Amino acid sequence: MQLIDGKAVSAQMKKEIAEEVAQIKKAGGKIPHLAAVLVGHDGGSETYVASKVRTCEEVGFKSSLIRYEEDVTEEELLACVDRLNNDPDVDGFIVQLPLPKHISEQKIIEAIDYRKDVDGFHPINVGRMSIGLPCFLSATPAGILELLKRYEIETKGKHCVVLGRSNIVGKPMAMLMMQKSYPGDCTVTVCHSRSENLKEMCLNADIIIVALGVPEFLKADMVKEGAVVIDVGTTRMPSSVTKSGFKLTGDVRFDEVSPKCSYITPVPGGVGPMTIISLMRNTLLAGKKEIYK
Amino acid sequence: MQLIDGKAVSAQMKKEIAEEVAQIKKAGGKIPHLAAVLVGHDGGSETYVASKVRTCEEVGFKSSLIRYEEDVTEEELLACVDRLNNDPDVDGFIVQLPLPKHISEQKIIEAIDYRKDVDGFHPINVGRMSIGLPCFLSATPAGILELLKRYEIETKGKHCVVLGRSNIVGKPMAMLMMQKSYPGDCTVTVCHSRSENLKEMCLNADIIIVALGVPEFLKADMVKEGAVVIDVGTTRMPSSVTKSGFKLTGDVRFDEVSPKCSYITPVPGGVGPMTIISLMRNTLLAGKKEIYK
Repeated sequence: MQLIDGKAVSAQMKKEIAEEVAQIKKAGGKIPHLAAVLVGHDGGSETYVASKVRTCEEVGFKSSLIRYEEDVTEEELLACVDRLNNDPDVDGFIVQLPLPKHISEQKIIEAIDYRKDVDGFHPINVGRMSIGLPCFLSATPAGILELLKRYEIETKGKHCVVLGRSNIVGKPMAMLMMQKSYPGDCTVTVCHSRSENLKEMCLNADIIIVALGVPEFLKADMVKEGAVVIDVGTTRMPSSVTKSGFKLTGDVRFDEVSPKCSYITPVPGGVGPMTIISLMRNTLLAGKKEIYK
Repeated sequence: MQLIDGKAVSAQMKKEIAEEVAQIKKAGGKIPHLAAVLVGHDGGSETYVASKVRTCEEVGFKSSLIRYEEDVTEEELLACVDRLNNDPDVDGFIVQLPLPKHISEQKIIEAIDYRKDVDGFHPINVGRMSIGLPCFLSATPAGILELLKRYEIETKGKHCVVLGRSNIVGKPMAMLMMQKSYPGDCTVTVCHSRSENLKEMCLNADIIIVALGVPEFLKADMVKEGAVVIDVGTTRMPSSVTKSGFKLTGDVRFDEVSPKCSYITPVPGGVGPMTIISLMRNTLLAGKKEIYK
């Protein structure tokens, strides 16, 4: 069993991006600039955005943080999106989700210029991904592809089972793994809460990507010998052991599943660290206008 | 075994659409207007477009046919798309594919205003479909959904195997069958030319949608008793029996597979007749501004 070390891969990627930014700087080019919009004071969102801003600094990007209180109106937020769309210095930006209930997340997402949509949530980017055209891939799927690539995991012709059909992980992951490319070229099965035959599907899988958000859902008797298991789950479970009072728990019962695997991602330290670095890479691509002119 | 009669369903839908158009007319509303752009004189394209124009007449739509010779430039075609985008009388339009090699199909598709993209090929419509938002569904997937619906075929929790991963059938079909809706809510597997375990997947399937374009690919020993089989294949095979000198052949060996099925679509007369009528429905929706304002 080999552990897929997302922390090490993301650190390596961070180094690579920082080097490229240093070269751009040296050549007198434009420093990539990521803006983040944060509404309210949700603990999780605060942590994510702070981490994104910090990573920008570490790789040498310019970053901006725009804050609104919980009671911001949809109109104000749309006006902010419009300003960022039209700000030539901003290469890419994100609006941290979730948003307060009185604001339509979909409306905000669709208002973002898809050429600056480094989160990859705009329908144009989702559609282009599905068709197989260059686009901004959303962070978690992009991070998983990168892990498969860096560990040179064979995918062609393999059976990949995706557990979960969310718009941000399950569906894009399925589309990507069936594309005629590497990683990809898999037979892909998507299972979810309504699936009658989930266990037998998993037992048949060469690669299992679990994104259900159900702690320790995947057990040893659902996994065949030699499988590759990618755990996207990150549920905060109360813990008396950690200082914070909780611990991140994946969707895989790691202790019993890992001995059967050829490769497995731990939680934490697997897929998690890949998401922010994938956002950084999208920002770099946006800055270099590699995907859209 | 029950035959799924696409010809009868499409005739019924044609009647329904014609009635709705008659009511719109009576109420003094705007008659839906479909424009079709045809480049060159390819036999298949000529037939399809003629059939689309004829069906427009039958349901009471206004239709326009814009023809270009094979040597039209990309710029001229883009200018035509631009005119149609800006023509307030045109509710929806299609550019018949394939286009000559010197013209980028993708560029033309992306130039079409997605609110008039009744073929559903624009990345925005593809992305919105994937996310589960209202959109123009492309004709073949929409036609298959309609057949499943009108025959009240159970899909929830079933295992649906899609053979083929094309952008116009396989991928959208997979996305639609996994959505939390009816028809849908299936466990979905997508197999293709690289799949190592295609036969066992098919044997496990409750619903098989075959869109490989390989005549008589699906055989009796690949189908379990009671399966639903949807045949999207339409290959022209030479024939000494028919007047035209060819016959349409599906991707299913119908004679041996059909006795095992609970439901099956024939070729011709199954999925085929559903495609044009699905385009008509999209045009009606465009005319009524039901999807986009």
